[in-house]
Amino acid sequence: MGAAGPSHGYLPRMTQQVKRVVIIGGGFGGLYAARRLSRGPVQVTLVDRQNYHLFQPLLYQVATAGLSPGDIATPIRSLLAKQSNVEVRMAEVAGIELAAKKVKLSDGEVLDYDFLILATGVSHTYFGHDEWERFAPGLKTLDDALEMRRRVLTAFEEAEKEDDEKARERFLTFVVVGAGPTGVELAGAIAELSRFTVARDYRRFDPKKSRVLLIEAGPRVLAAFDEKLSDKALASLRRLGVEVRLNTKVTNIDPHGVSLDGERITAATVLWGAGVQASPLSRTLGVELDRSGRVKVTHDLTIPGHPSAYVVGDLASFTQKDGSLVPGLAPAAIQQGEHAADNILAAALGNPTEPFEYLDKGIMATVGRASGIAQSGPLRLSGFLGWCAWLFIHILYLIGFRNRVIVMFQWAWAWFTFGRSARLITGTSTSARREPEKLELTAEAARR
Amino acid sequence: MGAAGPSHGYLPRMTQQVKRVVIIGGGFGGLYAARRLSRGPVQVTLVDRQNYHLFQPLLYQVATAGLSPGDIATPIRSLLAKQSNVEVRMAEVAGIELAAKKVKLSDGEVLDYDFLILATGVSHTYFGHDEWERFAPGLKTLDDALEMRRRVLTAFEEAEKEDDEKARERFLTFVVVGAGPTGVELAGAIAELSRFTVARDYRRFDPKKSRVLLIEAGPRVLAAFDEKLSDKALASLRRLGVEVRLNTKVTNIDPHGVSLDGERITAATVLWGAGVQASPLSRTLGVELDRSGRVKVTHDLTIPGHPSAYVVGDLASFTQKDGSLVPGLAPAAIQQGEHAADNILAAALGNPTEPFEYLDKGIMATVGRASGIAQSGPLRLSGFLGWCAWLFIHILYLIGFRNRVIVMFQWAWAWFTFGRSARLITGTSTSARREPEKLELTAEAARR
Repeated sequence: MGAAGPSHGYLPRMTQQVKRVVIIGGGFGGLYAARRLSRGPVQVTLVDRQNYHLFQPLLYQVATAGLSPGDIATPIRSLLAKQSNVEVRMAEVAGIELAAKKVKLSDGEVLDYDFLILATGVSHTYFGHDEWERFAPGLKTLDDALEMRRRVLTAFEEAEKEDDEKARERFLTFVVVGAGPTGVELAGAIAELSRFTVARDYRRFDPKKSRVLLIEAGPRVLAAFDEKLSDKALASLRRLGVEVRLNTKVTNIDPHGVSLDGERITAATVLWGAGVQASPLSRTLGVELDRSGRVKVTHDLTIPGHPSAYVVGDLASFTQKDGSLVPGLAPAAIQQGEHAADNILAAALGNPTEPFEYLDKGIMATVGRASGIAQSGPLRLSGFLGWCAWLFIHILYLIGFRNRVIVMFQWAWAWFTFGRSARLITGTSTSARREPEKLELTAEAARR
Repeated sequence: MGAAGPSHGYLPRMTQQVKRVVIIGGGFGGLYAARRLSRGPVQVTLVDRQNYHLFQPLLYQVATAGLSPGDIATPIRSLLAKQSNVEVRMAEVAGIELAAKKVKLSDGEVLDYDFLILATGVSHTYFGHDEWERFAPGLKTLDDALEMRRRVLTAFEEAEKEDDEKARERFLTFVVVGAGPTGVELAGAIAELSRFTVARDYRRFDPKKSRVLLIEAGPRVLAAFDEKLSDKALASLRRLGVEVRLNTKVTNIDPHGVSLDGERITAATVLWGAGVQASPLSRTLGVELDRSGRVKVTHDLTIPGHPSAYVVGDLASFTQKDGSLVPGLAPAAIQQGEHAADNILAAALGNPTEPFEYLDKGIMATVGRASGIAQSGPLRLSGFLGWCAWLFIHILYLIGFRNRVIVMFQWAWAWFTFGRSARLITGTSTSARREPEKLELTAEAARR
């Protein structure tokens, strides 16, 4: 009946040439792109250096012992197992040749592509002070979160060992740098941890007397929100006992603490919640980047001059009609990933691509237990209502039904009992556990 | 009314001298001893190098990605938070002076005691071949389990990268040494993982074709059980596709595989489930030990000649009236911990101690999904019934209500979906994730 004729170009056909799509990065952008490509005449290879997709908005919960790594991470292979046109590769990318349409992996293999989706995201930056990283780890990966958890929990253990009051105070001082969502959520969660969760656990000191400082160079916390909501978040933080320092710059971080303009804070634990920098891969492309190293993309999400190379998610610098940039949020990454996939399917069939338009669904952040802020269009929520909105959206988006149920249970449990379920200090190496000197070194390293 | 008189010696009094008890080790023996001491006129310090109590019987589930670390571990401080006479110290013990009644910690602090409970357990031994440890990790700690999980999951990822059929077979061969409970449970769980859980996840090979070998020097698996039950377990293992080699000794382990008497197995992943050796602390005591380094204790669980020093759990070598040793099982450790606590309370009040008698509640093991064996008194269970008994007992004993519910849910979920929830490869260091060469080294190390 002529069903195999070339006029039915919309439907994939075995006779049609199958295009090869390489997606780099299995975060929100890459994963949703891969899913969207399931219905097209394409063969997809998704490359990630980890074997799991991470629900990054909840990473601070792992860092503060509220959730286990397994609760917010799902193997990419399981998420895509049913999609027969997708292959997943756990590998590091060594380089990309845009002109030759090749991706080189660090194990030597080369992947040829017809279309590329680059979605490697961003990490934190120390504004030229990379030497601070040792003393003030940032939060982008699961291993980062476990390192933070180790430091925070170890600080309490060290305080319990310490006889000297002064030295103990150092262990009970926690400094968080940067009052964006990550910094605010970390500071709020640590304040709660010390005031409620471990309040009865120690004998030599009162964990409630721990100091939690939040240092912000700008004039307010959560600057992406309306000023009124910012103020409410600030009030919530202060109610939790967090000492917030606004308009305050960090001038130095060393093993003993933090120097601010004109003030010195002695602290064993410093956490970094500031600065965003594009994944280093962007610098190897030889294309135009913005100040943070993100790739400037055209209206259809491709790299200028490379119509088959898309960039989506946090790594993309996309200027909207009103001149503002699309923010680095999970919903934006999802929209861009799906849009890039649609454009690739269109291009593969010889159709024109569509310009991307960001649908702003709003932003939200949480400040400790039962307080949050949310804004969406004309809607403004704060306090308990803001927190409920935050909770609802985050559980709704948490990938995988199982994770949703477990996380809901863990939260409900933690909420009613003030307990945190994942309060484990893990990660000293096998040999260290056998040799006391090495354990000491590890603990020393954790302190610094 | 004379209530403060010395004749009421049974009741703790402020006027009575409070005895100091030091417990070393927060496993089953140490933890249950600490709990039992809550009602006595004693001040307890529990020392452990980890901050959590580990439900060791389920450790193999973490090693095979069925459970998350947080599911089987609970902070010791939370477990003892309500007990005001207990102080918990996260520290390494550097040495014990039995005569002077002192415990020296590696941070230099010295704890004086009136009574000591030593409960540091056992680890695995390589029978004089410590160089095998790098290639065949054992399973005693949470970090051991995470290392095993990393190796097993990485092997599948490496297989997916490999083009060469021969090289791929090496990654898809898993060898478990030792067919005691740990080895049998590991082999069964890996067989399931490959045949069900990840069966659809890879594109270049069929995970069902993975080989799982279980090597045992003795004539049967699970030798502690009746011969009939052993045979049933063997049949279950073979049904799962595990190649069991009985009466077979391992003569060498190197980065490329395992040498048996007269056979060479090329394998990327070798796991060690054999050999038990006392914690090295026992060797520093200068007291009589058995062949495995366990401390020989008298009828009341004290060290001969040191009536104030108790040894409980796996570290104790206790000969029963019939000449047999008390086995190294959680129920035995719990009974001994509580008995030592009772004896200390008696001695503190000037009363005589009681001899320990082990109440054998039976033994059980599981062989993969829905098959297990259990024997208790005249009762013998196998197959699905044996597994139900195993499940019931393990969930019942899992410390903490929250963990019980979560684990039950995870298991139910895994059982119905064949999914394993904790399939994450974690633990490469921060720097390694930034530098491809180092990642390669890490992956290489994981392969070996």
